[in-house]
Amino acid sequence: MYGKCNHPADSSSSCKRLGFLQKNNSLEERSRIVTSFKERAAKNLQLSCDNVGGEARFRRTETDFSNLFARGRSRPCSSCSRSPLTDPPRCWTSTTPTSSSRAWRASTWSSPTSPSPWSRSWWTVRTKEGFLLLSSHLLLLFLFCFAFGSRFTYEIAPVFVLMEQLTLKKMREIVGWPEGEGDGIFSPGGAISNMYSVMIARYKYFPEVKTKGMAAAPRLVLFTSEHSHYSIKKASAALGFGTENLILLKTDERGRVIPADLEAKVIEAKQKGYVPMFVNATAGTTVYGAFDPINEIADICEKYNMWLHVDGAWGGGLLMSRKHRHKLNGVERANSVTWNPHKMMGVPLQCSAILVRERGLLQGCNSMCAGYLFQQDKQYDVAYDTGDKAIQCGRHVDIFKFWLMWKAKGTVGFEQHIDKCLDLSAYLYNKIKNREGYEMVFNGEPQHTNVCFWYLPPSLRGLPDGEERRERLHKVAPKIKAMMMESGTTMVGYQPQGEKVNFFRMVISNPAATRSDIDFLIEEIERFGNDL
Amino acid sequence: MYGKCNHPADSSSSCKRLGFLQKNNSLEERSRIVTSFKERAAKNLQLSCDNVGGEARFRRTETDFSNLFARGRSRPCSSCSRSPLTDPPRCWTSTTPTSSSRAWRASTWSSPTSPSPWSRSWWTVRTKEGFLLLSSHLLLLFLFCFAFGSRFTYEIAPVFVLMEQLTLKKMREIVGWPEGEGDGIFSPGGAISNMYSVMIARYKYFPEVKTKGMAAAPRLVLFTSEHSHYSIKKASAALGFGTENLILLKTDERGRVIPADLEAKVIEAKQKGYVPMFVNATAGTTVYGAFDPINEIADICEKYNMWLHVDGAWGGGLLMSRKHRHKLNGVERANSVTWNPHKMMGVPLQCSAILVRERGLLQGCNSMCAGYLFQQDKQYDVAYDTGDKAIQCGRHVDIFKFWLMWKAKGTVGFEQHIDKCLDLSAYLYNKIKNREGYEMVFNGEPQHTNVCFWYLPPSLRGLPDGEERRERLHKVAPKIKAMMMESGTTMVGYQPQGEKVNFFRMVISNPAATRSDIDFLIEEIERFGNDL
Repeated sequence: MYGKCNHPADSSSSCKRLGFLQKNNSLEERSRIVTSFKERAAKNLQLSCDNVGGEARFRRTETDFSNLFARGRSRPCSSCSRSPLTDPPRCWTSTTPTSSSRAWRASTWSSPTSPSPWSRSWWTVRTKEGFLLLSSHLLLLFLFCFAFGSRFTYEIAPVFVLMEQLTLKKMREIVGWPEGEGDGIFSPGGAISNMYSVMIARYKYFPEVKTKGMAAAPRLVLFTSEHSHYSIKKASAALGFGTENLILLKTDERGRVIPADLEAKVIEAKQKGYVPMFVNATAGTTVYGAFDPINEIADICEKYNMWLHVDGAWGGGLLMSRKHRHKLNGVERANSVTWNPHKMMGVPLQCSAILVRERGLLQGCNSMCAGYLFQQDKQYDVAYDTGDKAIQCGRHVDIFKFWLMWKAKGTVGFEQHIDKCLDLSAYLYNKIKNREGYEMVFNGEPQHTNVCFWYLPPSLRGLPDGEERRERLHKVAPKIKAMMMESGTTMVGYQPQGEKVNFFRMVISNPAATRSDIDFLIEEIERFGNDL
Repeated sequence: MYGKCNHPADSSSSCKRLGFLQKNNSLEERSRIVTSFKERAAKNLQLSCDNVGGEARFRRTETDFSNLFARGRSRPCSSCSRSPLTDPPRCWTSTTPTSSSRAWRASTWSSPTSPSPWSRSWWTVRTKEGFLLLSSHLLLLFLFCFAFGSRFTYEIAPVFVLMEQLTLKKMREIVGWPEGEGDGIFSPGGAISNMYSVMIARYKYFPEVKTKGMAAAPRLVLFTSEHSHYSIKKASAALGFGTENLILLKTDERGRVIPADLEAKVIEAKQKGYVPMFVNATAGTTVYGAFDPINEIADICEKYNMWLHVDGAWGGGLLMSRKHRHKLNGVERANSVTWNPHKMMGVPLQCSAILVRERGLLQGCNSMCAGYLFQQDKQYDVAYDTGDKAIQCGRHVDIFKFWLMWKAKGTVGFEQHIDKCLDLSAYLYNKIKNREGYEMVFNGEPQHTNVCFWYLPPSLRGLPDGEERRERLHKVAPKIKAMMMESGTTMVGYQPQGEKVNFFRMVISNPAATRSDIDFLIEEIERFGNDL
């Protein structure tokens, strides 16, 4: 339908539309242009903005910020800066999802492993399709993403819908699902992504809960590690399972789930008449950075017909590293995966994806088919209206910053980022594992960048193991942290875990950190802690 | 504890710390400064950055963007641009929540009704407390907000925690709760805010559901208007109630709930043995912009001991207008209120607040007391660690942009914004109500800015009311919209509603729109629709 203008090489006729329509254009001029639009529409229905050849389009800039904001939350066209009418705005260009999508697939991921040639395209994000997505300035790109935030239908945010779709596919490919098949959505954080996974699992096994409520299901039980993130517990409370029906699994000394404990607890639950439905395996626990053995857990899930979710909010980023991705071996057997680029990959918060292996579940689980938003008689393929998959309505644009980073760094850039952080944490581990005054919380090199350790001030080093030592050691980390915060030089977190008294947890996710920063941290701990 | 340095007038001694610590400072220099920090700490534990007098601080600028990003997601101090260590960063200044909070209360809302004197403070957001929150450039403020996004504990985002707390209090005051008492949180959109309201209501009446699941409660039913937003339905599905237990209430011709229908359905549900628990009253429905009669609904809620939620996602903004806030009369009787500044008030998406009248419920409902985040032995009042109230963990900073806008426009600015939009919609209504070829979907001036109408091409005007006319009229709006999208001149949404075939719904939320924009819209509709 829009064939002619959509081809990037098509530099024909209607360049006039790329001229700026200034705010102070006379009404006559505006009217003339509008008439011209209409005549073209009547002739061939082939209208889009991106049909000048060469590099001309890259020189167009948007400099009037007030306009940018005033236009509302939908996509403006850089060819027009007329005064806004409403939200959505008066100024438009149009393409169909399918043709856009095809071009995107080619242009966006043509060289996914290495950084894109930003010298040419960094300042201007374009689709080779019917629209320019501004701009001449990095700050504007961020502002754009910041200011224009709603995604639930293709027509409101076509570029972002396509970006999300293609990026999710890429992520599913990296997870290891054939051809990147499946489904997914960006959500406002890992906790919500994990909540999605429980909802989807419930819909898969007991779809009638959607209409009839939990009363329609037997007593369902969920399983997760005692070291897992509290969001699984929050989900079990919120979704009506109840936290008592979330069964905590024992872990080994390193914080990894013991598969035999899972199987024993599944059998026990079944004997009680409960229905084991969902298992969360954590890839990168919050405190120890442990990776649960996904393959062994997947065996048990298959045996007992349970949903396997992998919470890779923290550890998912390691999938980008050829050196470290083996820690997630088996992730391709998961039914759903949480992966937060806003954690290990350094994308600014919020940017979290829930990936689902089976298509249709996300839609089936959440859709309510609100007629006022998701009309079925639209003039394009409404499968691109992704909003009804979400528990939200409008969604913040989280994809754009991630997509930009991916284009800028390439997959190889993320790999280097991650490898560097893990190298640094190994450096820290090796530096303190035999150093006087330090004790590691668990043995062996950490799987992730979490280095967990106690610092013992000299006054505690001679004490025998016992209650007094424990009590005094419990207070060391909070005191040092408070002094750090007061002095303003550094900060490192601490917490207890199970029987273990307060210990430091140093987590490295910033690749700009250096070995001398690590050295400095250790100096500071000793400086503050020496006299405690 | 930090008294000396916290007072803005205290321009004593330690100005040295405001000198830039450049990346290329020598190690010796760094060490010297750190030692100096520590000595001060040992002497009096009075350390903060904001202790130079006069306007000197306003001239300090941050120009190295790469630094700004490299520092991670925690708050940097403008006095230091050293290389980052980790997330959280090395560079800190510290205050206690209570003292900060006090100063904020005074400084932030000292003149809430009128715009702040930005000439002095626009470019630099400061707290009169121990930290500067940059910056010399509006874009940086946005970037800052965009890039540093995590809020779950005070220590990670003290300024944003306080901003959120005080802004929520202000919103509760405007709702009409005495002294702004109550609770609340910013969430990723109105759908999630509405979901919170259902969760909190359930926790209030059946707290045991949190641990035991929905099996612990009787069959609970919820009520909402047949015109309400679909998020209430999504919440009833997600939270385990089941959509069948959400009972839809009849509305009058204008789309407002008929209170007698609510009471009849409550009685009917009780007769069946169900437990009516929750009523949603919509303040500004999505399609008609109708305001349910809150006072009459509140009477019924009190009589039958049900939770009253007001979904003011769309209409909440009218509370800022002395002329229009009467449409929400009774809102102060609600147990909870959803209010999205990102809709009618023009704050960029996402910015949605759930306000709760009773303190403690939000925390009780959602807290899981994760020891690794919410340690109780921190050196400050952990009541400021708001994260455990949320179903999320880290949260995007949604408050900053809203706070900035409020400071810039003042309450009076929002009032003008809203009054102008409503004036414009009244202009549109008056223009078309008797115009040839137009039919209004409901009679009388719209309550909100939603103007709902049919356009009848000349070929339909002579047709008698009947199936043929309905069928043809149903196709008019989609066709005109498609032509608008193709021509790129304007766009206006349409939908059916109940028995009513597709009609246009013009919604105005952008105060930059003008009467001539409205005129243009009408021209365009007629231009495209004339020959259909």
